[in-house]
Amino acid sequence: MRNIMLTIAYDGKDYHGWQYQDNAMSIQEVMTKALKKIFKKKININGCSRTDARVHANRYVANFKIENDIDCESIIRALNSVLPKDISALSACEVAEDFHARYSTFAKEYIYKVYDGKIRDPFLRDYAYFWRYRLDDKLLNEQAKDFIGVHDFKSFCASGSKITETTREVLDASVERQGNLVIFRFKARAFLYNMVRIMVGTLLYINAGQIKKGSIPSIIESKNRILAGKTVPPQGLYLNRVFYGEENESN
Amino acid sequence: MRNIMLTIAYDGKDYHGWQYQDNAMSIQEVMTKALKKIFKKKININGCSRTDARVHANRYVANFKIENDIDCESIIRALNSVLPKDISALSACEVAEDFHARYSTFAKEYIYKVYDGKIRDPFLRDYAYFWRYRLDDKLLNEQAKDFIGVHDFKSFCASGSKITETTREVLDASVERQGNLVIFRFKARAFLYNMVRIMVGTLLYINAGQIKKGSIPSIIESKNRILAGKTVPPQGLYLNRVFYGEENESN
Repeated sequence: MRNIMLTIAYDGKDYHGWQYQDNAMSIQEVMTKALKKIFKKKININGCSRTDARVHANRYVANFKIENDIDCESIIRALNSVLPKDISALSACEVAEDFHARYSTFAKEYIYKVYDGKIRDPFLRDYAYFWRYRLDDKLLNEQAKDFIGVHDFKSFCASGSKITETTREVLDASVERQGNLVIFRFKARAFLYNMVRIMVGTLLYINAGQIKKGSIPSIIESKNRILAGKTVPPQGLYLNRVFYGEENESN
Repeated sequence: MRNIMLTIAYDGKDYHGWQYQDNAMSIQEVMTKALKKIFKKKININGCSRTDARVHANRYVANFKIENDIDCESIIRALNSVLPKDISALSACEVAEDFHARYSTFAKEYIYKVYDGKIRDPFLRDYAYFWRYRLDDKLLNEQAKDFIGVHDFKSFCASGSKITETTREVLDASVERQGNLVIFRFKARAFLYNMVRIMVGTLLYINAGQIKKGSIPSIIESKNRILAGKTVPPQGLYLNRVFYGEENESN
């Protein structure tokens, strides 16, 4: 069996995330159907991460096993000829038999886009979160650094989550402006449920003065979801890159 | 009566153009409903141009008359609170009584976006035309200059059009690259039906060698639609600016 590592991009607007679901359309279901069309049989595909409904991916990694000796370029061409236009297969390569898109992950990077122009941009309604007040990207970038390190992120985990071990390592956190878009970027070994969206919500509240500057360390310390900011909506969130081994990112 | 000049932006993906239609959703219908909600009565709104189904607008100009003394800032706020998220009211101002969004136009500028990355971008499927082969933007920019001037553009008018006077003045034409996007830009006093989309299609055919370099003047001369390139699809087209008087553009 050959193990194929596949990188895709998708507009998540019309999907209920990656993971297969009985009553809603998922990226995994569409990918499985596409592989079946090409290989004429059911092929299991592993994704690097569940993503929530309406969340996007710039470079999402999956893997699947085939016996066919089709070359990787042709897999990409074949996939793009059967996939809907909101999913693109970007690259494929053959990897070691034990590679698993999810379990082999070293780290993931998410970005979150906030649009802070005076008037909402009709072209970005599904691709960024509209925040009516001008953001101080320098301040936010500085405050975001407090997330870096190994911390118990219980305050930044959706309250319904059943996970009990909430310690995670954030490798990098930054905020930068690109015109009227403010890009929040977080790289971590792993994330808790809604963690990025709560970290962004907390930074937005700090900018608005609803949460005091410099209080991220004490919010982490408190292990109390109530003290963090709101969970910002999914449409601004993008799985941006997945790293397998420190230098081995998806491309 | 006060005459209000209104500038809006819209994502045309889900609309059948500006103009009211019986059996399809138009921007004009949505704008009329929004004005009715605000002013509690039917208000006629004139647009600067019909636009085709799926065509977008960065700055589209309309005008309407009201007796109400509401200030222009409040009109914008009120409109944005009732409009769907794919239409934004950008600015409003009071203008002379005889101003008409369509008949007072001095010139219009359209842009057309072509994406020529190796693999289609799932986020641009409704916002640019995907062209599989790398474009030579320098060549295209040079060739586009042949459209400038007063010409009979019969070769660049949709063949079904009933218009008989097909002479138009193109004020500017250019092509520039922004990453994997190639932006075609045309400014003219007025355009024929599908004129921009046929001019872009002709330039793409020149790039591909299907039409000879330097032959735009002879295609114009021929007054024969068959000799020009194909009509490219609507999703790459944006009404970008409208000019009222040489310096008086929408903003």
